[in-house]
Amino acid sequence: MKKVVLGIDIGGTNTVFGCIDEEGKCLLTGNIPTQKHEDINNYLDELFDNVNSILDKSKEKLEIIGVGIGAPNASYYSGTIENAANLRWKGSIPLVDLVKKRIDVPVSITNDANAAAMGEKVFGAAKKMNNFMVITLGTGLGSGIIVNGDLLYGHDGFAGEVGHMIVRKSGRECGCGRKGCLETYVSATGVKRTVYKLLARHLGDSELRDIPFSKLTAKMVAEAAGRGDLVAKETFSYTAKMLGEVLANVVAVTSPEAIFLFGGLTKAGDILFDPVRETLEKELLSIYRNKIKVLPSGIKDNAAVLGAAALIWNKN
Amino acid sequence: MKKVVLGIDIGGTNTVFGCIDEEGKCLLTGNIPTQKHEDINNYLDELFDNVNSILDKSKEKLEIIGVGIGAPNASYYSGTIENAANLRWKGSIPLVDLVKKRIDVPVSITNDANAAAMGEKVFGAAKKMNNFMVITLGTGLGSGIIVNGDLLYGHDGFAGEVGHMIVRKSGRECGCGRKGCLETYVSATGVKRTVYKLLARHLGDSELRDIPFSKLTAKMVAEAAGRGDLVAKETFSYTAKMLGEVLANVVAVTSPEAIFLFGGLTKAGDILFDPVRETLEKELLSIYRNKIKVLPSGIKDNAAVLGAAALIWNKN
Repeated sequence: MKKVVLGIDIGGTNTVFGCIDEEGKCLLTGNIPTQKHEDINNYLDELFDNVNSILDKSKEKLEIIGVGIGAPNASYYSGTIENAANLRWKGSIPLVDLVKKRIDVPVSITNDANAAAMGEKVFGAAKKMNNFMVITLGTGLGSGIIVNGDLLYGHDGFAGEVGHMIVRKSGRECGCGRKGCLETYVSATGVKRTVYKLLARHLGDSELRDIPFSKLTAKMVAEAAGRGDLVAKETFSYTAKMLGEVLANVVAVTSPEAIFLFGGLTKAGDILFDPVRETLEKELLSIYRNKIKVLPSGIKDNAAVLGAAALIWNKN
Repeated sequence: MKKVVLGIDIGGTNTVFGCIDEEGKCLLTGNIPTQKHEDINNYLDELFDNVNSILDKSKEKLEIIGVGIGAPNASYYSGTIENAANLRWKGSIPLVDLVKKRIDVPVSITNDANAAAMGEKVFGAAKKMNNFMVITLGTGLGSGIIVNGDLLYGHDGFAGEVGHMIVRKSGRECGCGRKGCLETYVSATGVKRTVYKLLARHLGDSELRDIPFSKLTAKMVAEAAGRGDLVAKETFSYTAKMLGEVLANVVAVTSPEAIFLFGGLTKAGDILFDPVRETLEKELLSIYRNKIKVLPSGIKDNAAVLGAAALIWNKN
């Protein structure tokens, strides 16, 4: 029997799972809606019914040697999901214990940015790195930090909230209740806010003037930038500068070998990466200059499931 | 024979050494001037002549099982001192190798803030903590960060430069060539600069108006604050707020159990600690609130030598 780890990524809409072998190949995959069941036990029943039915149909017999889970507000230390705003299950959900009742193997849980970092280490472009960081750029900004070859969890399991470092005192309102957090500038939502700020400031033509805020996406902004739209280009330059500034401060804490950027926004390519690199080098303390690589993720497909499975493969 | 570690603290003026037993007792101590010899070998000859002569005179026979060294610009990974601005020996000095030629035991070197952090863990108030941070407040601001029970060195050995995180974009000029670094506000020198800024801004009486910049010390400011001088009190409040702001950002990276403040400035006591705690709590992301202790160091005497020795005792 081939040994695999079951990687599970619990998203706000869908839960995706896959059986990942030691080389990072995704042998089987499937998904169920996340929010159908009010009772977490019914959700897990459906999930494992699906997993087992797919395993049964597999030609190659697979042995699940562990389960890795990526989920919002996951606490690695307690194995729980804590008051996740985007999930139906409120309070503290002892997910690791509930999964272990269904399958008697090592089970590990962490948030999606930490899973992305571990995925990069085990299967991606950071295989030989022991000190690096992954920044996930989606609706918000997440971060997973690897120190001495392992995830940095801190005292309570909640280390790595770079998206909530303050970059502008009294700056933009953040969903966390404070002001000026990095993710209010550097994220898909941050990009939209910057477009509207620049449209208010400048008088020049921009194709973005025809799109209402509620319909605008970061992808549209990236495409407009690709067509030379000045507001769109300045938006990415502004976004990258904010990120570079904060990364220079984070480097002064953790001194990583590389910083990986991951997620939808990175599809913008050089118009994002180039000014991030430039600002970072300019803002760094001299001892860190010309040392730190800013790189795209080395994982192409099934990133979330691979990252979740890496939590277990890293220990084997 | 009683087993001890030789702890050596190389300061800009004096080099202090001590034989530290497993309980952190300093059994023998001595010192030599740091800057007398242009050749590092002559300096080390004098140092070890002194150590041996003191050992010979000791009633209790001591066995040195290791040497821990705290020094400016020390690189833990390479065992060198790199271009230390305050020392005579320029370039890269292979101190660990040179010491090993004189005594065949494990030898470890790190900077003074890292040594302070390890001292706190092995002999101080952080014995049961695995994730915490020490901020050393002297002429500048140093930081030593413990993660998963060990020092955070990062990829190149130079992690933990919290004093060079930017707290005010385009702020005060820093010795590092950049502007707005935390240590330009939060350090003995930063306190002096703040006094002069406030004397320029306000019209009220202050005993500090009679002291020229070159003669003013942070201790004088603390004493004036103790006597109720308003400028001195506002200086400490401003200093503490700057520190609290940056610590809130560092917590979002490392999530420590406690932050220890160490060094001359901490003698100011509550007028420093209270507003640091208050600002930190106010600025923290909610998941970190009411969790993080801001504490004075638990080490009273021989802190630098104890910290250096802790580098070895931590491994035994």
